[in-house]
Amino acid sequence: MDTMEIALQEARRAAARGEVPVGAVVVGPDGAVLARAGNRTEELRDASAHAEMLALREAARRRAGPRLTDCDLVVTLEPCPMCAAAISLFRIRRLIFGAYDPKGGGVEHGARIFAASSCLHRPDVVGGVREVEAGDLLRRFFEDLRQSG
Amino acid sequence: MDTMEIALQEARRAAARGEVPVGAVVVGPDGAVLARAGNRTEELRDASAHAEMLALREAARRRAGPRLTDCDLVVTLEPCPMCAAAISLFRIRRLIFGAYDPKGGGVEHGARIFAASSCLHRPDVVGGVREVEAGDLLRRFFEDLRQSG
Repeated sequence: MDTMEIALQEARRAAARGEVPVGAVVVGPDGAVLARAGNRTEELRDASAHAEMLALREAARRRAGPRLTDCDLVVTLEPCPMCAAAISLFRIRRLIFGAYDPKGGGVEHGARIFAASSCLHRPDVVGGVREVEAGDLLRRFFEDLRQSG
Repeated sequence: MDTMEIALQEARRAAARGEVPVGAVVVGPDGAVLARAGNRTEELRDASAHAEMLALREAARRRAGPRLTDCDLVVTLEPCPMCAAAISLFRIRRLIFGAYDPKGGGVEHGARIFAASSCLHRPDVVGGVREVEAGDLLRRFFEDLRQSG
């Protein structure tokens, strides 16, 4: 299964738990999945428990080291500024994301974390991968919320 | 004890563990300390285990809710972009920090997280509180590192 499909699966599972549907996967240099996670901010009552943060921390735990210099992060949505800055701190090699997020994103929008001259590590960035599917998941989730609210 | 003194204490303890000496405290509306933490990136092998992140998560756990709208965060160093963005996500009321960090800071420097038009929550910010002590701790730590390295 391609890694964005795994990330989308994690996003769908997050939606089923009532969480904003975002999923993330950390992929090692050999293509193996080191960690996968969906958003758990509600369940963990932790505003920082975004899919990317959980996957990065889990991958570093498995690697027994805080640097993931030969790893890629695949995520269904453009990371927010917190997650983008964490991606830089964990030294991720390449960031691949699905839907662009003009309101909350911090890579191509808003704080544009990797564009700051003080940013010490910039991953390669590939955006818009299967963006329609990733975006539809989010749109449907928020539509359902509005209808039930 | 004033809360910056508690944050400085956490920073000194971090230094004693071989961690970059930064300490943080989350203070509730009644002035009570909800959480206190020092940097643990080395110990936890987690590049995101900055003092602020650990204190915010612990405070939210104790509050059993991800929003800390009536709480203040006191930290010895200007937060990096990841921590600044997390402070916004946790809806911290007021951020009080010690030393300014022109290289790694994300509040008054670099990505300037709270200045982005897409930033949904901006805390009140008070910088430079006991900045000499907080900065000296960091300077001594990195001088010792260079001498032993």
